[in-house]
Amino acid sequence: MSRAFGRVVRVRREAKGLSQEKLAERAGIHRTYISSIERGRVRLGLDIAKKLADGLGTSLSSLIATVEARSRQKG
Amino acid sequence: MSRAFGRVVRVRREAKGLSQEKLAERAGIHRTYISSIERGRVRLGLDIAKKLADGLGTSLSSLIATVEARSRQKG
Repeated sequence: MSRAFGRVVRVRREAKGLSQEKLAERAGIHRTYISSIERGRVRLGLDIAKKLADGLGTSLSSLIATVEARSRQKG
Repeated sequence: MSRAFGRVVRVRREAKGLSQEKLAERAGIHRTYISSIERGRVRLGLDIAKKLADGLGTSLSSLIATVEARSRQKG
């Protein structure tokens, strides 16, 4: 789940035209941590996941639903 | 988010008539950890949250959407 979540964060961030620096600033998370999250290197906590959703201007449930939808597509 | 999530887990578990022991067994998580989660004593990770959703027979996005709805009600 943490890995798939990181990939969805990257896709959403790029779709919004945000740099990792800008998302870091909006989410209140260090830039290098954003990089680790997107590469799936981090066991992500719910509270950080919520901050990322806020920074992306979406809800955490929406991000997670996207992760679930991508997971179903893979079967 | 972790605290509110724990409360929603308890509500859903009780609504399904599951004991903490039974949910622990279904989710593959230790019973005492379930207790800590429900009392908001744990900084919850996404992967454990996903296991809890599986154990409750629901999706993680559904659990989180419930947390968000309760949060909005409080204003």
